[in-house]
Amino acid sequence: MSNSFIGRIAIIASAALLLVSCCGKNDGVIRTKVPVRPAGQEDVIGLKADPIDTVRIGIVGLGARGSFAVYRYTNVPWSKIVALCDVLPEKVEKSANYLVENGFSRPDGYTGLEGYKELCERDDIDLVYICTDWVHHTPIALYAMEHGKHVAIEVPAATTLEECWALVNTAEKTRRHCMMLENCCYDFFELSALQMAREGLFGEILHAEGAYCHNLFDYWNDYWENWRLDFNYRNRGDVYPTHGLGPIAQALNIHRGDRFKTLVAVDTKSANGQVAFEKKKAEGKYFQGEDAKDFRNGDITCTLIRTENGKSVLVEHDVLNPRPYNRMYQLVGTLGYAAKYPVEQLSLRPEQLEKAGIDYKIENQHAALPEDVVNALREKYPTPILDAELEEKAKRVGGHGGMDFLMDYRLIYCLHYGLPLDMDVYDLAEWCCLGELGSISMDNGCAPVEVPDFTRGGWQKTDGFKYAFADGSMR
Amino acid sequence: MSNSFIGRIAIIASAALLLVSCCGKNDGVIRTKVPVRPAGQEDVIGLKADPIDTVRIGIVGLGARGSFAVYRYTNVPWSKIVALCDVLPEKVEKSANYLVENGFSRPDGYTGLEGYKELCERDDIDLVYICTDWVHHTPIALYAMEHGKHVAIEVPAATTLEECWALVNTAEKTRRHCMMLENCCYDFFELSALQMAREGLFGEILHAEGAYCHNLFDYWNDYWENWRLDFNYRNRGDVYPTHGLGPIAQALNIHRGDRFKTLVAVDTKSANGQVAFEKKKAEGKYFQGEDAKDFRNGDITCTLIRTENGKSVLVEHDVLNPRPYNRMYQLVGTLGYAAKYPVEQLSLRPEQLEKAGIDYKIENQHAALPEDVVNALREKYPTPILDAELEEKAKRVGGHGGMDFLMDYRLIYCLHYGLPLDMDVYDLAEWCCLGELGSISMDNGCAPVEVPDFTRGGWQKTDGFKYAFADGSMR
Repeated sequence: MSNSFIGRIAIIASAALLLVSCCGKNDGVIRTKVPVRPAGQEDVIGLKADPIDTVRIGIVGLGARGSFAVYRYTNVPWSKIVALCDVLPEKVEKSANYLVENGFSRPDGYTGLEGYKELCERDDIDLVYICTDWVHHTPIALYAMEHGKHVAIEVPAATTLEECWALVNTAEKTRRHCMMLENCCYDFFELSALQMAREGLFGEILHAEGAYCHNLFDYWNDYWENWRLDFNYRNRGDVYPTHGLGPIAQALNIHRGDRFKTLVAVDTKSANGQVAFEKKKAEGKYFQGEDAKDFRNGDITCTLIRTENGKSVLVEHDVLNPRPYNRMYQLVGTLGYAAKYPVEQLSLRPEQLEKAGIDYKIENQHAALPEDVVNALREKYPTPILDAELEEKAKRVGGHGGMDFLMDYRLIYCLHYGLPLDMDVYDLAEWCCLGELGSISMDNGCAPVEVPDFTRGGWQKTDGFKYAFADGSMR
Repeated sequence: MSNSFIGRIAIIASAALLLVSCCGKNDGVIRTKVPVRPAGQEDVIGLKADPIDTVRIGIVGLGARGSFAVYRYTNVPWSKIVALCDVLPEKVEKSANYLVENGFSRPDGYTGLEGYKELCERDDIDLVYICTDWVHHTPIALYAMEHGKHVAIEVPAATTLEECWALVNTAEKTRRHCMMLENCCYDFFELSALQMAREGLFGEILHAEGAYCHNLFDYWNDYWENWRLDFNYRNRGDVYPTHGLGPIAQALNIHRGDRFKTLVAVDTKSANGQVAFEKKKAEGKYFQGEDAKDFRNGDITCTLIRTENGKSVLVEHDVLNPRPYNRMYQLVGTLGYAAKYPVEQLSLRPEQLEKAGIDYKIENQHAALPEDVVNALREKYPTPILDAELEEKAKRVGGHGGMDFLMDYRLIYCLHYGLPLDMDVYDLAEWCCLGELGSISMDNGCAPVEVPDFTRGGWQKTDGFKYAFADGSMR
């Protein structure tokens, strides 16, 4: 039913902005076009909006992610779900009933492909929370911001450079918050390691790694209209980079003193991708442009990025092959090291252990620190966004172990107090752009491609990653 | 005392062949020059030499690696050490005494910078075993082959493309074996995983990773004339790639049906390298060209390679930062997965477990197989080069847990029976070329660089990696 709609959205989006061109300094680096910021428009770095007593939320898209968000928001203070939208009426009904059954007032419901528009046009909604399939994220977010709403968008918020720039420009023009729901930035090990990084425990972080290695073999049927496999069928590159990239970009202070400068990408041929495509096509699953016989995305994509300050980043993507789940999360610093997968590891120079006040003699510089020292370090460097009560609540409410709740909590907390959000529209664009930039690199023989400065000159305005707090601090 | 000598060698080597040039198909890929094979000369793929009843060995270089090799060879059948050489007479004396004290006849000794020449000129030596500092590996190997000797060379056997090509050409011309002593190809987990790969347990291997992450902070003073830090001071790139690359190249059948085609490399700035340089220089350590204020190598280098058959490879290098020892060793296949660091992991599709005859129901496709299943798989897929007796001996003799002994044993076994060696001169060149090719990539903004076909057309002659055996099989 929605096939022609997806096609329309895609055509409209690609006609809107034709960005990719190789403008030449003749140094072999491919540069994409950076649209000029409209006169009078300013960046949204550190953007604050008016405090909101109770954040009134409309959720669009009630699949796995959206319906679970409904549950989580029943536990988030200063918030109220006032409207729900999904293409399928039964999804809206189910989530609305859940709210009523749990003592909340029934939200208004919107259905069908255009339902989100009516939701966005209301004047009693502060935040549109978007959990649809990937290709609808940006169109809905743009419509919401144009109608005065803050937006929070599931990952990846944007699937093309055009969409990245459209979200940046619209956020700047409308002065609305535009945050990507990168929950992995709120996972507990990452939060601890980020705090250690911010307090200099690892020295200068030189290299970082992140990944999304998650075998979706048994899950391809779970996506409405086969959208996820279909997207990989039509697009080459790391189409899902943000879980790996988000947490390490925060530790590297990206657009807070450093910026991604150049990337190269290398993929494998399509093997299990092609097999999955042929199998699902035989089962009658929908594929856009299904006349193409070849699955476009390689099974595995690796991207290497160099930053302006001489750091390096590796990001990997593999959703097709049998392997243990792995987001990597590795920070390599001049004085210390953190890694999360397949086991949590910390290493430090002896003087850093001493600085942390840990009494432990390192016998073997080539082994990771023992578990009790790791635990002691985590206690010495708590993330400032959690106290014991909130941590207990996050773990009780859950959502990937609590990180989803914590992300929602921080989003609402900052909106309630009129503070800058933890993640802004430039984070969104920097993390999402890897897909198309990598595909440009690979379609050009793995040539280096410049990562656009989405802040258009503002990447040094902020000195390091910070959280905002209601007492006025920016810890 | 040897400073001017090192300088001379370097000048002679770089004058011999000027290889690097960007000859253009205008596709952005940098190509280095492939020297034309001299008329009448043939490749040495599958080279067999006459069987040798007792392999008479001359060892050149008696530092940590060479002196330990002397010990190991007292345990290797069909071999006899007849000559020893080192720049320092006391090193020769010490190893010669060790042999005598253990009931072997006293080998002849050669000392000084040119001692190796007299050793190579003898007519009662079959194999010159080279364990010097890196920059002397190739000059000594060339001299030995020109004097009719087989050579075995510590890693990296070659430090430049010129040296790679010189070794290839000289091995082809003289029809002598030229093997790099890549001991990590004989580590037990790698041997098991290679056998699983060869028997198709992982399906088609699409991606592989290898690394040398080993913090040498406490070791820089252990190298004669400061050669190792000095080499990093003067050279950019992954200067020590073979421990990571060797074992995965075997699993990928490189120049046995596939070949490395293009690479890109990205490094970090020099941070701990610069610190170590300044500290050691202040301590009076020798640096060639010490007027340069900047340490040339980045602290961390990542290299991505794409193969002719559409596979990808990641190789990492970091000897400067505090972190757990890690060679990665990861194989990602369409039906299974193996990784060694920081913990050994295997994953398989259920049908592959069944094929292996293992009765285990996989409950969680996103977790690695449990330890008992991993052990059962390792028992089901033993490497053909070990039996229980030899494994016991390897572990008893030792050398990085036994792999060094096993490497020596296989080398002598194949020479004794007149068989092709496990690793040939093309392996050597393919694994060593990463350093200079990566530096070319990085010096050109991370441009893609073509990996030369060192077989010059022969990379499809052999169908898969094989070991030779005295019963005539090539298991």
